[in-house]
Amino acid sequence: MKYPVLVLVICLWASGVVAQSGALVFQSDFGLKDGAVGAMKGVAYGVSKELDIFDITHEIPAYNIWEAAYRLNQTAPYWPQGTVFVSVVDPGVGSERKSIVLKTKTGHYFVTPDNGTLTLISETLGIEAVREIDERKNRLKNSQQSYTFHGRDVYAYTGARLAAGVIRFDEVGAPLNSDIIRLAYQKPVFTNGTIAGNIDILDIQYGNVWTNIDQQTFARLNAKHGDQLHIRITENGRQVFEGNVIYGATFAAVPEGAPVAYLNSLLNLALGINQGSFAAKHGVGSGEGWKIEVKR
Amino acid sequence: MKYPVLVLVICLWASGVVAQSGALVFQSDFGLKDGAVGAMKGVAYGVSKELDIFDITHEIPAYNIWEAAYRLNQTAPYWPQGTVFVSVVDPGVGSERKSIVLKTKTGHYFVTPDNGTLTLISETLGIEAVREIDERKNRLKNSQQSYTFHGRDVYAYTGARLAAGVIRFDEVGAPLNSDIIRLAYQKPVFTNGTIAGNIDILDIQYGNVWTNIDQQTFARLNAKHGDQLHIRITENGRQVFEGNVIYGATFAAVPEGAPVAYLNSLLNLALGINQGSFAAKHGVGSGEGWKIEVKR
Amino acid sequence: MKYPVLVLVICLWASGVVAQSGALVFQSDFGLKDGAVGAMKGVAYGVSKELDIFDITHEIPAYNIWEAAYRLNQTAPYWPQGTVFVSVVDPGVGSERKSIVLKTKTGHYFVTPDNGTLTLISETLGIEAVREIDERKNRLKNSQQSYTFHGRDVYAYTGARLAAGVIRFDEVGAPLNSDIIRLAYQKPVFTNGTIAGNIDILDIQYGNVWTNIDQQTFARLNAKHGDQLHIRITENGRQVFEGNVIYGATFAAVPEGAPVAYLNSLLNLALGINQGSFAAKHGVGSGEGWKIEVKR
Repeated sequence: MKYPVLVLVICLWASGVVAQSGALVFQSDFGLKDGAVGAMKGVAYGVSKELDIFDITHEIPAYNIWEAAYRLNQTAPYWPQGTVFVSVVDPGVGSERKSIVLKTKTGHYFVTPDNGTLTLISETLGIEAVREIDERKNRLKNSQQSYTFHGRDVYAYTGARLAAGVIRFDEVGAPLNSDIIRLAYQKPVFTNGTIAGNIDILDIQYGNVWTNIDQQTFARLNAKHGDQLHIRITENGRQVFEGNVIYGATFAAVPEGAPVAYLNSLLNLALGINQGSFAAKHGVGSGEGWKIEVKR
Repeated sequence: MKYPVLVLVICLWASGVVAQSGALVFQSDFGLKDGAVGAMKGVAYGVSKELDIFDITHEIPAYNIWEAAYRLNQTAPYWPQGTVFVSVVDPGVGSERKSIVLKTKTGHYFVTPDNGTLTLISETLGIEAVREIDERKNRLKNSQQSYTFHGRDVYAYTGARLAAGVIRFDEVGAPLNSDIIRLAYQKPVFTNGTIAGNIDILDIQYGNVWTNIDQQTFARLNAKHGDQLHIRITENGRQVFEGNVIYGATFAAVPEGAPVAYLNSLLNLALGINQGSFAAKHGVGSGEGWKIEVKR
Repeated sequence: MKYPVLVLVICLWASGVVAQSGALVFQSDFGLKDGAVGAMKGVAYGVSKELDIFDITHEIPAYNIWEAAYRLNQTAPYWPQGTVFVSVVDPGVGSERKSIVLKTKTGHYFVTPDNGTLTLISETLGIEAVREIDERKNRLKNSQQSYTFHGRDVYAYTGARLAAGVIRFDEVGAPLNSDIIRLAYQKPVFTNGTIAGNIDILDIQYGNVWTNIDQQTFARLNAKHGDQLHIRITENGRQVFEGNVIYGATFAAVPEGAPVAYLNSLLNLALGINQGSFAAKHGVGSGEGWKIEVKR
């Protein structure tokens, strides 16, 4: 009777059912024109051939930490518990910035420089624990003389080892002895019949404008599909757009070429033009200086 | 004797030999700059970690259903039986357009809005059956309030469940009670020594012009490698190019900078310039309005 | 006792522990806008569902063999032994150029047209053996009438069969009866206190300038972090840049907007601007005509 049990265990192990291996998901501002992403994946695959390796995007605008934070927040909740994200937007590489791994209350892991990249995800999914990467243990062998590609030598390597179960979370390094770095940004507020918020991002491919005004805050206007909304957009105080826009369930609620306000796939308020680009037509951008006011 | 058999079954199951899991292949007009593709893949991976997830392209021009149809037709035949394709080019999201899964006679599956995306593949591979997606059963949990990202909430989710064997094809929904939507396009014809056809697409990276004139139709000209062809290209009746081009086996048949007509990797007639761009040099585009006439 | 052993063998085989399957890594100048890469991966997946399929980049500039060579050299060493690379930058498709598989002394395999693509990797990793692909045996079935997509019909197919263990290296074809094709390029030299070298590539996303001056050659200047270097850049003899640049460990060594010389992630000398683009600011390019001279 002993042999079948032994065989079963070996089979389950060999089949990956027992092993801790999971998804490793990359994000960066490296672009896809050179070999940086390919080198990171080679390092990860060298750690374990059992890893499932994916990408969010490598087209984060160079050095744009806010957008890195935004893309993680937009996508991570759709990945299963245990997924390890490696995000490398790192303008401070070589400075005193720390390298960390954050575990959320939902059981997702984020490997990144501590530079604000985790601002949004830490609010959305909650912080379970944060550890600082100990590079004496968690760094690709023979890479000590290279100063400038931590994405490959530290983050991809550590993320792969964590996702593959080669190291446990507590083997990353000591607990971080301070709060993580957080970017300042304005949250949505409802005052005297007007909602103020921030334009977080453009849905670039279609030119849609995405705000941080969530469904619950927006509900305080009591707007129904078909209602007119009065919208004002400013960049650092300078008015960029003012006008009325129909609130609809989808783009099909308005004629081709007409603007529409809708709840996007994150259930936040967004602006678009049916078969067109709201951002291009009205010169709207995104980021901390871009404010939006909405009333009925 | 019972145990080894049980162990064998468990092992085979755990090894994926018994499970129906296969390839899930995405295509869209989302681009790779934001998190849309990453969110779709997260949903799919959450359905089953055994899936093999790939992409054709996410750079279909926005809302261009013809090009979506063309890319599926160009690539799907090279994937094995059982592969599930998810194509999301969906200008009518939120309108009354249906969501379908088409099974071809070759055993490939296509998950997409019913908007013409399957025009070409249905002719090439043949329709075995079409079912309308029942969103009451085949939709990501807790996504009902989001109207506008069916690619993630319906198509990626349903495609992943089908590819992983979580649902069978007949569990997608009821059979479609009508024909699929088909785009009108001109087919190649041979009349009085001249072949007329359509310019389906540009091979963008190299500027080559790809027609829908297949090898059999082209053979009616009895052209041999080295022969001159007389070519005329019009856009909605306006002449864009007229001239003689050598018919060669490859680009190497002509000097650098010279034009060449050849059978492309789909065995259709195409035009190029050795080390140059035919499309850029002569201002040629592609789509339903772009006609080509060829004679000797 | 026989059954458990049999079961164990079956399990190990089914689990991929025994099979030779490994990573298949693609590179090309096809771009990601059309279906070419998707068709190559479909062919590879059709060879074996056990393959792990990755990409370096498909954004090599069209027909740029030097850059194909450079990207392989930059990334391949980070992938484990046994990895099979398929690189398709093939301006001579259809000409007499040969198709080869090169095995390095490190146990990496490279499947490519013999056109100079392996110039750098053969110097870095060393040549163990080279075989010419016998297309009578190693070509996708029913693809003989298609002349122009060897990437799919020959290279992807052969690379997949090699990576999956369907064929052994000696089944690729006969040993190549000559040396591989090699691109001529200037190597770094130290003479009379000045190092001369070549600008191999731009780190496009950030506008950094990467030279082929390696750490050992650079060490002959005895420069320390904080030292000024005098740099002169010419394109085919025409001076493009001359000036002093600080040698630092990282970009953080200089103020925002200032130039810095540093050892990049390949441990070669590179030039950048902290939070800016050296290449754009000074009009610097890369390739065989771009020379750099460095002295203290």
